[in-house]
Amino acid sequence: MAERKGEPRLEEKLFEVAKRRGFFYASNEIYGGLTGFYDYGSIGTLVKKNIENLWRRHFLSLGENFFEIEPSDVMPEPVFIASGHIKNFIDPSVRCKKEGIYYRADHIVGNAIKQNVEGKNAEELGNLIKEHKVRCPKCGGELGEVKVLNMMMPVRLGAEEDTLAFLRPETAQGVYVNFLRQFNIQRGRMPMGLAIIGKAFRNEISPRQLLIRQREFTQAELQIFFDPDKINEMEEKKWEEVSKYSINILSVGKGEAAKHTCKDLAEKMGIPKFYVYHMAKMQQFFIGALGLPEEKFRMRELSKEERAFYNKIHFDVEVYLESLGEFKEIGGVHYRTDHDLKGHGEISKKSHEIFFDGKRFIPHVLELSTGIDRTFYAVMELSYREPKEKRDWEWFAFAPGVAPFQFAVYPLVNKDGVPGPAEKAYVQLKERYAVVYDDSGSIGRRYARADEIGIPFSITADYDTLKDDSVTIRDRDTTEQIRVKIKDLEKEASRLLAKGH
Amino acid sequence: MAERKGEPRLEEKLFEVAKRRGFFYASNEIYGGLTGFYDYGSIGTLVKKNIENLWRRHFLSLGENFFEIEPSDVMPEPVFIASGHIKNFIDPSVRCKKEGIYYRADHIVGNAIKQNVEGKNAEELGNLIKEHKVRCPKCGGELGEVKVLNMMMPVRLGAEEDTLAFLRPETAQGVYVNFLRQFNIQRGRMPMGLAIIGKAFRNEISPRQLLIRQREFTQAELQIFFDPDKINEMEEKKWEEVSKYSINILSVGKGEAAKHTCKDLAEKMGIPKFYVYHMAKMQQFFIGALGLPEEKFRMRELSKEERAFYNKIHFDVEVYLESLGEFKEIGGVHYRTDHDLKGHGEISKKSHEIFFDGKRFIPHVLELSTGIDRTFYAVMELSYREPKEKRDWEWFAFAPGVAPFQFAVYPLVNKDGVPGPAEKAYVQLKERYAVVYDDSGSIGRRYARADEIGIPFSITADYDTLKDDSVTIRDRDTTEQIRVKIKDLEKEASRLLAKGH
Repeated sequence: MAERKGEPRLEEKLFEVAKRRGFFYASNEIYGGLTGFYDYGSIGTLVKKNIENLWRRHFLSLGENFFEIEPSDVMPEPVFIASGHIKNFIDPSVRCKKEGIYYRADHIVGNAIKQNVEGKNAEELGNLIKEHKVRCPKCGGELGEVKVLNMMMPVRLGAEEDTLAFLRPETAQGVYVNFLRQFNIQRGRMPMGLAIIGKAFRNEISPRQLLIRQREFTQAELQIFFDPDKINEMEEKKWEEVSKYSINILSVGKGEAAKHTCKDLAEKMGIPKFYVYHMAKMQQFFIGALGLPEEKFRMRELSKEERAFYNKIHFDVEVYLESLGEFKEIGGVHYRTDHDLKGHGEISKKSHEIFFDGKRFIPHVLELSTGIDRTFYAVMELSYREPKEKRDWEWFAFAPGVAPFQFAVYPLVNKDGVPGPAEKAYVQLKERYAVVYDDSGSIGRRYARADEIGIPFSITADYDTLKDDSVTIRDRDTTEQIRVKIKDLEKEASRLLAKGH
Repeated sequence: MAERKGEPRLEEKLFEVAKRRGFFYASNEIYGGLTGFYDYGSIGTLVKKNIENLWRRHFLSLGENFFEIEPSDVMPEPVFIASGHIKNFIDPSVRCKKEGIYYRADHIVGNAIKQNVEGKNAEELGNLIKEHKVRCPKCGGELGEVKVLNMMMPVRLGAEEDTLAFLRPETAQGVYVNFLRQFNIQRGRMPMGLAIIGKAFRNEISPRQLLIRQREFTQAELQIFFDPDKINEMEEKKWEEVSKYSINILSVGKGEAAKHTCKDLAEKMGIPKFYVYHMAKMQQFFIGALGLPEEKFRMRELSKEERAFYNKIHFDVEVYLESLGEFKEIGGVHYRTDHDLKGHGEISKKSHEIFFDGKRFIPHVLELSTGIDRTFYAVMELSYREPKEKRDWEWFAFAPGVAPFQFAVYPLVNKDGVPGPAEKAYVQLKERYAVVYDDSGSIGRRYARADEIGIPFSITADYDTLKDDSVTIRDRDTTEQIRVKIKDLEKEASRLLAKGH
């Protein structure tokens, strides 16, 4: 749907309701905000934790030997010498001489000359600016020299502040430096999975698009360590689960995505079975667990030029976001080979070779990566519904597992004994579900409030309740109501949640 | 129990099992560790998340209007001008001229002259060093000048790195800068609670005692905003819950702690009811929810000299830790008055006065603060049991809600159809509980492994299972076994967990 002139853009509408209803808003707002930082409010935090818990449940159940760990966010310099971040984690930036503001040089050049310039260095970008006479996209001003900035945030420790460390720019390194210790703790079995759900920090030159490109953000990443000789194998039972399952794939060189079964991806397109299985599990997380619409989802293969040199196979998880007018990366499946463990082995001088299944080798890594904030934003946008027909307010069609509360409970009035059964229903449902009790304002106002934060079901006790011990249940999506006995409420609640949305 | 010579100290024993079983270990170990940082391993992360979730459930249920939020860890300079951290969050440090190492000047002086020197400034500490001829406690070397160091970790943002920000040194400020926005979102009701469970960062001069004094740590803090005129009031129903409940209190000037009922604390000792109620809830978290032994727990009142000037009433939550030979602060209840909101109001120029209940005022704050890492360490130590009698391995008597898994399930042997019913029991219990399946090594070895990470119940399928569909359940604490039918397993599991440990 094209935006009509004069109407606020979808991004603005989402941000407006996000602020008003406590999903998220600019960090340190009373001080004018802090560029590239957002705070999750009371409702957003519930939704974000739900997404994180769904991620945890989904990905950690992929193997008996899969665990979450929680390493420190601050890591010493040698880690990033080993990982290559000190040398390579740089953003080319260019200053508009007129405004005095820095922009990402690759973005400006890429947009100006309509070419993918990812991976070009400062000199190459500088040459392109001269060659194509690229000027500031905002004010038309002349651009300065392209310079590079390491995006990591340094932290100095100790009384002399002489220990150089960094806030991690990705959670992955936290797993790699723990590999040897955890391999021992987990009694030397392969495959072995280690996940982190935590913060990462990058001094982005031009943070933008709300939660999409921030300077502090939450990643959920699972690193699977495995024997590279077994990359074409998958346990029969697990493979059968997915072999007929289709994934929407945009291959290198293709203009459009197309559906392929896992079987075809492995047998006809030659992608290793172990990799394909985990692509399927990735799609199942977004479509199945989070309830994102399948047609907005694809996995895009990155070409050799686009992907990091150590990623042998790399698919980005992308969703189409109308507010941004493009497919946006919200995760990825990366076959990182032995690059990381080898690097840490060399710099730490601790051999990362293990003995397993009769041979010595450095395990290879398959990384399943999810940007939690981007996923949160995608879930919000794709669940957003405009005011229409009976409803003159916007609402969110969150899946019940994602919604901040599954149920809202109301007494129609605060008198004549009506609150009694409402409270009873509330206490009863609270044992098992996230429930909110709301007794202020007209019932219409309360429905609107519940819709605006995406509560799937609203339960109301009214005057009839006093006669027949029944309450109404309103379905958020249809606004239709059914009447059930309070004694059947739990059974009915579980039935409604199970049928899904 | 006094330590025998030659035996490792309790702290070392705990750290040894922590490393071996994946509770926690030095961060970035392969690079020789990073002073003041620890990583939680696969088992520790499960326990830590359990503690955090118990905290969340306990404290957020104290009011309908209590929510968790998730603000950014990085906050701009004005926040800490307002909070006073730029000016006051400094540690006096002193360098041993012989070793070239910095120590906390207040700790060295305090220990040397056996006086509480908390709150003394650099000059006063320097004078005490001269006066008492204090020398380095480690090597006897001469001490240099006392200097002060701000403990916050600065972070510079932007392409010019010209925006000064800090990693928050406490989570509390994240709540305060969100107060105005959230008061609106939560529709202007009091009391209002906002919690953060998240990281805080301090460049401690001498981090020590494992998880107790780290440079990166997790806090769980609930800030309750309330009308100061109502500090002596408590809802009848809520007050009745606690009025006869006893808290172990060490009052200022008293040598020993004593038990007082909430009623007495309010009526005889003049502590405001609103404050007393939350002291009770604090104790109930540690004793009830986490299962810490009551006799190791006390709340210590801080004198005017000891407490921050803005804390009008201040009790530290303390547990006795044998490994450290002292009572250690693991939390606190702080009546911070309007100090914080007033400060942010002045610096941000946004009025923090609200209109409520017919009047205008700046809300007061009651802070319930918990150090998650310290709590984790206390839980580990107080649950630690030495090898004894039938068991020649150490074990942990974790409460079921804290334990990494509630159940372990084993097939006695991996043949003759024994694994079948074990797997069935595993799948069945996994629906509701955290369960681990373990089929390697002798059954004795598996019991030991379960004990070492504190799993309360071990379930074994054996040859009798094939005959009568029953399994054994071994109780970790008594090592005794009972036999139950698999069809009764769920009922029995829930009974065993409910009876508590």
